[in-house]
Amino acid sequence: MKRISLLGATGSIGIQTLEVIREHPEEFGLAAITFGSNMEAGRRIIREFMPRFVSVKEQADYEKLKDEFSGEPVTFSWGEDGNIEAAVHHEADTVVNALLGSIGLVPTLKAIEAKKTVAIANKETLVTAGHLVTEAAKKHGTVLLPVDSEHSAIFQCLQGEDPASVSRLILTASGGSFRDRSRKELEGVTVEEALNHPNWSMGAKITIDSATMMNKGLEVIEAFWLFGIPYSRIDVLLHKESIIHSMAEFEDGSVKAQLGTPDMKVPIQYALTHPSRLPLKNTSRLNLWEQGKLHFSKPDFDRFKCLHFAYESGKMGGTMPAVLNAANEEAVAQFLAGRLEFLEIENRIEQALEAHSIIQNPDLEAIQHADQEARALVRSLLN
Amino acid sequence: MKRISLLGATGSIGIQTLEVIREHPEEFGLAAITFGSNMEAGRRIIREFMPRFVSVKEQADYEKLKDEFSGEPVTFSWGEDGNIEAAVHHEADTVVNALLGSIGLVPTLKAIEAKKTVAIANKETLVTAGHLVTEAAKKHGTVLLPVDSEHSAIFQCLQGEDPASVSRLILTASGGSFRDRSRKELEGVTVEEALNHPNWSMGAKITIDSATMMNKGLEVIEAFWLFGIPYSRIDVLLHKESIIHSMAEFEDGSVKAQLGTPDMKVPIQYALTHPSRLPLKNTSRLNLWEQGKLHFSKPDFDRFKCLHFAYESGKMGGTMPAVLNAANEEAVAQFLAGRLEFLEIENRIEQALEAHSIIQNPDLEAIQHADQEARALVRSLLN
Repeated sequence: MKRISLLGATGSIGIQTLEVIREHPEEFGLAAITFGSNMEAGRRIIREFMPRFVSVKEQADYEKLKDEFSGEPVTFSWGEDGNIEAAVHHEADTVVNALLGSIGLVPTLKAIEAKKTVAIANKETLVTAGHLVTEAAKKHGTVLLPVDSEHSAIFQCLQGEDPASVSRLILTASGGSFRDRSRKELEGVTVEEALNHPNWSMGAKITIDSATMMNKGLEVIEAFWLFGIPYSRIDVLLHKESIIHSMAEFEDGSVKAQLGTPDMKVPIQYALTHPSRLPLKNTSRLNLWEQGKLHFSKPDFDRFKCLHFAYESGKMGGTMPAVLNAANEEAVAQFLAGRLEFLEIENRIEQALEAHSIIQNPDLEAIQHADQEARALVRSLLN
Repeated sequence: MKRISLLGATGSIGIQTLEVIREHPEEFGLAAITFGSNMEAGRRIIREFMPRFVSVKEQADYEKLKDEFSGEPVTFSWGEDGNIEAAVHHEADTVVNALLGSIGLVPTLKAIEAKKTVAIANKETLVTAGHLVTEAAKKHGTVLLPVDSEHSAIFQCLQGEDPASVSRLILTASGGSFRDRSRKELEGVTVEEALNHPNWSMGAKITIDSATMMNKGLEVIEAFWLFGIPYSRIDVLLHKESIIHSMAEFEDGSVKAQLGTPDMKVPIQYALTHPSRLPLKNTSRLNLWEQGKLHFSKPDFDRFKCLHFAYESGKMGGTMPAVLNAANEEAVAQFLAGRLEFLEIENRIEQALEAHSIIQNPDLEAIQHADQEARALVRSLLN
C-alpha cells in the first residue's frame, strides 16, 4: 500500500486526489494532510480518513482541531512548518504537493531530501526553483511525478522511450475562457467572465492564468525542467477541445499523444500508480466518433503576451521565472479582488520583469527575495 | 549491426525498407532478399547492397541472375523455397516479411522456428494463421514486430505499459478512395478510381482493400493476434486525414495515440530499431497547427460490408479468416483485371464464407486447403 501525504487537501487537486484514494482503499492510504482555512471540508477529511498528521494555515484553527479530535491518534500542526512536517512525515512514501503558490517550494525540497516520491501539482516548485528541485532529486534519487494533465500526458508518452530520442514537446492549450476574443474585446471583462473556463473545472487563480495563457507559459517552464528539453523545442498548440492533453515528438518523426476527456483524476491517479495503472471508475471514456472534430491552431504571442513573457523568462533563467510567477500571482489576486483590469495583468508582469536585475543560479533565499520584491512592486503600482 | 533478410524487396514496403537501411549503413546490413519478377529493380538492389542470398519467383530469372552475378559472393535461389531459405538465412537476425498474399505464411513460421526477430508487413501471416504464429513465437521466444502503420502505432503506445492494463484498441481508418461515396455511387466505379487513395501511396491490392475497408478488417484480425485483445474491445474509427495512426485505451481511461504524416518509413524503421529509435531524414514532420482539423466518425458496417465480414470471421476463428482472405485476394484480382464489378467483391467474399465449413484449430494444411477452396469457389463464380 502506498501511504500518501497530501499537501493542499481541500483544493481542487486535493479533493480529486482524495477521490482517487477513496476508490482504491487497498492500494492507497492517507498518512498526512495539510489544508488552508476550509475547516468544514478539513474536518470531513479527518473523520473519513483519520490521517496521522494534519496541519492547517492558522494557529487558531490548529487549536480548534486539536480540541475537537483530542481522543484521536492524530498529530496537529500549523503554518508553513506544518506543510514541511507533512512533506517529510515518516509514514508517507509519496507526497502529493497540491499547494497553491510559492509556499509549495520548500515542502517539495524537504520531501525530496527525505527521499519521498513527489507528485507535483504545485507549479511554482519547478517554475521558480527548477534547478534546485531537479538537482536535489538527482542527488537523493527521488522520482518527480507530474500531476498537471499536460506534463502527465508527456510523461505517459515517454514511458518505454529513451529520453534522448525526444525531439520536441508539444503542449496543448485550450486558450481559456477568452480564446475567441480579440485583445480589443478583452477590455473591461469581468472576473465572472474570466472564471468561466470552457473545458476544465479548476480553482480561480489557475482559471485566470488559463485565460491569460500564463498557465501555459508556466507549464512550458515546468516542461523544460521536468523533461530537460530546451525551450526552442517546446511548442504550444492551441487545441480548444482539450482532448489531446499534450504530445512528444521523437527523432524519427513519430509523435505520441495522450488523450482523454478532461478529468484531472486521470493524471492524479497515474502519478500515484506509475508505472502501473489501475481502473478508474466515474470517469467518462473518450469517444472520438461522437467528438467528431479536433481543432488546432498556433497561439499568437501578441495576443497572449503572458506566454511570450514566460518563454523569455524561462530562457533568461535564474530568478526571472520567480519574478514572472510572483508578479503574476499578485496581479491575478488584484484582478480577482476587482482592483485591476484584466489586460493590466500582463502589464504588471512586464513591469516587474523589466525592473528586475537577474541573478543566475539563485539559492532559495535569492529566489524568495526576488519573489517578494516582485510582489511589492506590483502592489506599489496599484494606486 | 542488425543483419536483415528482406522478403519482397521490390514491393512498396520492400523499397521503403531499403531506404531505411540505406539511411543507416552503420546500423543495418542487408543479408538476404527475395523478390518476384521485377528484374530491373532486383538487379539494382543486388548491385547496391550485394546481399549474400537472393531468391526470385521464377526459375528462368534465377538462371539469368546466377549468370549475371557469377563472380560475386551471392547465392541464388527461386520459388517458395527461396523465400524460406531467405527467412532462415544464417547471417540474418531480423526478417522483414513484406511478401504479398498467403505465400508469406510459411516463411514467417520458418523464421520464427529459426529464432529470428520477425517484422511482419505480410497481413496474411497473422490473419490466416494467427494461432500458429503466436504459439510458435511463444515457444521459440521470438519477437514479432508489426510494420503496418496501425499496429506499429498501437505497439508504440504500449511501450512501457502493462499489456493487462489495455482496455481497448482503436484502429483508425482513412476510409479509402471511396470514403465519401454512398453504396449507390459505388456502382460501376473503375479500377483507376479505386486506385486513387487519398493519403497513402501503396500497392494496388492493398489500395483496393482500403477502398472496401477489407484492409481494416484484416488489421482488426491482426490486432487480435498481435495484442491479445478480444474483438469486442477492438474498435475501428474513421479518420480521413490518416494523422492519428491508431490508439490504445487503458483501464484508467487514459488513451495513447501515435501520430505522424503518412509515411511508411516511420513504422518500418521503428520495427528495425525497436525498442530504440533513430533519426529519420526525408520524412515530413507533423504540424498540427497547419493541419488545423482532424475528423472522426463511426464506420457504417452496412456501407462497409467487408469490415463486418472480417469481424465475424475473426470471431468465428478457425479457418474462417483464411477463407475471408483468400476469397478477397481472388475477387480483388478479378476486379483489378477488369473482370468483376467493385461491389461484387464483397458478394464473392460473402458467398465463400457461407459455403465454408469451419475447421477449428486448423494446422497449416487445413489452412491452405481452406484457402485453395475459397479461391476455387470465387474463380468458379466468374462466368
